[in-house]
Amino acid sequence: MKIKELFAGQAEDGKSVEVCGWVRTLRVSKNFGFIELNDGSYFKNLQVVIEAEKLENFAEISKQNVGAALRVSGVLALTPEAKQPFEVKADRVEIEGVSAPEYPLQKKRHSFEYLRTIPHLRARTNTFSAVFRVRSLVAFAIHKFFNERGFVYVHTPLITGSDCEGAGEMFQVTTLDQDNLPRDEQGKVDYSKDFFGRRTSLTVSGQLEGEDFAMAFGDIYTFGPTFRAENSNTTRHAAEFWMIEPEIAFADLNDDMRLAEDMLKYIIRYVLENAPEEMQFFNSFVDKGLLERLDNVVNNEFGHVTYTEAIELLEKSGKNFEYPVSWGMDLQTEHERYLTEEVFKKPIFVTDYPKEIKAFYMRLNDDGKTVAAMDCLVPGIGEIIGGSQREERLDVLCERMKEMGLAEDDYSHYLDLRRYGGTKHAGYGLGFERAIMYLTGMSNIRDVLPYPRTVNSLY
Amino acid sequence: MKIKELFAGQAEDGKSVEVCGWVRTLRVSKNFGFIELNDGSYFKNLQVVIEAEKLENFAEISKQNVGAALRVSGVLALTPEAKQPFEVKADRVEIEGVSAPEYPLQKKRHSFEYLRTIPHLRARTNTFSAVFRVRSLVAFAIHKFFNERGFVYVHTPLITGSDCEGAGEMFQVTTLDQDNLPRDEQGKVDYSKDFFGRRTSLTVSGQLEGEDFAMAFGDIYTFGPTFRAENSNTTRHAAEFWMIEPEIAFADLNDDMRLAEDMLKYIIRYVLENAPEEMQFFNSFVDKGLLERLDNVVNNEFGHVTYTEAIELLEKSGKNFEYPVSWGMDLQTEHERYLTEEVFKKPIFVTDYPKEIKAFYMRLNDDGKTVAAMDCLVPGIGEIIGGSQREERLDVLCERMKEMGLAEDDYSHYLDLRRYGGTKHAGYGLGFERAIMYLTGMSNIRDVLPYPRTVNSLY
Repeated sequence: MKIKELFAGQAEDGKSVEVCGWVRTLRVSKNFGFIELNDGSYFKNLQVVIEAEKLENFAEISKQNVGAALRVSGVLALTPEAKQPFEVKADRVEIEGVSAPEYPLQKKRHSFEYLRTIPHLRARTNTFSAVFRVRSLVAFAIHKFFNERGFVYVHTPLITGSDCEGAGEMFQVTTLDQDNLPRDEQGKVDYSKDFFGRRTSLTVSGQLEGEDFAMAFGDIYTFGPTFRAENSNTTRHAAEFWMIEPEIAFADLNDDMRLAEDMLKYIIRYVLENAPEEMQFFNSFVDKGLLERLDNVVNNEFGHVTYTEAIELLEKSGKNFEYPVSWGMDLQTEHERYLTEEVFKKPIFVTDYPKEIKAFYMRLNDDGKTVAAMDCLVPGIGEIIGGSQREERLDVLCERMKEMGLAEDDYSHYLDLRRYGGTKHAGYGLGFERAIMYLTGMSNIRDVLPYPRTVNSLY
Repeated sequence: MKIKELFAGQAEDGKSVEVCGWVRTLRVSKNFGFIELNDGSYFKNLQVVIEAEKLENFAEISKQNVGAALRVSGVLALTPEAKQPFEVKADRVEIEGVSAPEYPLQKKRHSFEYLRTIPHLRARTNTFSAVFRVRSLVAFAIHKFFNERGFVYVHTPLITGSDCEGAGEMFQVTTLDQDNLPRDEQGKVDYSKDFFGRRTSLTVSGQLEGEDFAMAFGDIYTFGPTFRAENSNTTRHAAEFWMIEPEIAFADLNDDMRLAEDMLKYIIRYVLENAPEEMQFFNSFVDKGLLERLDNVVNNEFGHVTYTEAIELLEKSGKNFEYPVSWGMDLQTEHERYLTEEVFKKPIFVTDYPKEIKAFYMRLNDDGKTVAAMDCLVPGIGEIIGGSQREERLDVLCERMKEMGLAEDDYSHYLDLRRYGGTKHAGYGLGFERAIMYLTGMSNIRDVLPYPRTVNSLY
């Protein structure tokens, strides 16, 4: 029986139960003891009462260390006067696996920094069991949201032959022997000998392939790992992270923003309903005010502001920003946070950015200066979603690519979509880890990734 | 309005509708024409009737090519006497995007080989729209299955510092400049200069990290991309594929097989219920007998046979196998298919393989010769799932690693799990693409992957 089931209403006084789990704490006196047992199914522990007169192996059990795995049979007793709603009076306790005394997770609090060095164990702590359960629930909520709307889930490829996706630095993927690289006549590395017969990298985005599938299925989304080989040692960047990229056909930027807002509200509601203990824990111990903020998001419309208006707001703010503000600049995190935290006090969409600071595929607005882009900014994080309406006009797209020095040959698939029944369409990317940070209040991306990969760090 | 909604019972005679989609066929006479429109939401097309007297732009519409994107407003008419249940009489047809006459997907049938060269377009054909919709539905069914059972979904890392995961050849991941590799004093490539400060590869399995999380949450699963740099040019191997790896604590090999059987039956039922048109299509045009076979699987228990018994069955078969049969050998696809297709005529579990042909982490049986491994074999494919109970005994595991020449230092995390509250546990890996092949009858893994990556081939 899972401990979750007991807490979900299956706890009756006098009921016989068998539970398996790991010792979180153990307090023993001579003939009597209490074990807090956790089986990972539920955030809270089950209290197990052990008595010398009932258990042959009482002495052995008493000597167990934190972390030991036990199999407990006993009788449930409701305890309305105590902190916990019920406990199990053990008739039998088997030791499945002992725990060595040097077990790193003793009762004392550990720093997140230390826990990052033991990623194989940290999910056993309160904080990380809450983080990774929420992560799992949010992933499911995202699939459920898109499934309910009839979106097709597409696995876009991770290994790509394109090194011009334009979203950032890439990792190279190779099977060439690095100590004996084959060379061509000019002395350059001969990639025709590599696994795929060409140079390959890890993708930075599934968007271009996502567009292919949107032109077949109408509404699609991707949800998979993405890579950036950027030398950014910040609390918000990882080299390997997960991204959700929906793409919708016959749709414009407004449809895109509506979808993004609906999705964010859906996953917030889902996690509040399905992980109330974890969310309460984050609110109490990680980020006071989290629940109020999320309630506020669910019950209000997101704000909307154009980039041009945003620049005016920033110029009028009287703030001393590290990066001075002027039209044409890219918004930095300090600007984004000012807008969402101090001006709007809620999530906002900033739209219609200057074309110079956005990607080639974003649809040119009629002003000829801005593109139909949107970033969704949230308090505490800054940008969480970036999206756009895509340029569906072949001539405009080719012109834009020429301006940016991109070769049409490298994008022949992408241009084909505009040759064969192209439609208005739009999409966005949600950084999954940033969403988890936002939902939990955790402030370092390393603490929401099971095994974070960042520059010079891989545990 | 989505075409799926019309077919789902929202088609009423006389109802005004607006639909967007792409032209699959267009037959026009002088004043009158029929367009088969598909919007990707549903396998079937919507018939649109165009009349010169109703449409100002009738002449222009008539000249559209297959693949053009249209926005159609009109009135629904039920057509009980016709092949299709209803049609739309168009009042207005807007051209969202024309299609060039050289559009590769004209009405004639194309070979799967040809279609692989245009992965950005092939999802627009009947076969591939069916394959990729089923792929999406099965992915959702898998998440739903594990979510209903309280499993935690874990994103195990793709980039790994371990090159000894033991499941196959690996791709190297690097940001070193291949034309200017940094070298150490011995002239070896200096990986301390690489992105992570060490040599890194793409994972071949998330199992080891999955075990970490199972020891925290009890029941977990992974579902993510996996890589093998193997030079196998077969219809069943890809260099990049998706894998599902559940891991369950306090569980043995029987629990593991029960979970695998429940999961396979669940996803078969799900896809039969949620994609009846697609499954009917596969049954008619791809693999006659598919539906009967799947029904048979859902309604019967899987077979069970030990490896030793399987060898006896093969020896007694009187068959002339390419690879001769003897105890100790690894089963080849020909053997697997004989067992599942000819002897059992249904999916079977083969258990208790010789330890020499299985991985170091599989639990040693009391006979000292075999391990608690299981492979699930299905007709038409062979192995679809491979799993085992894991060796939880630290001393036995270390002994086994020594025999196989594995260094304990490379597996310190893994050994920690046996030091700190190790429990009986088990798990398996399901190759997602093989499952899709099995469910659809498609016979080449390249035709169930959106963008297949195989040796020397990357479109």
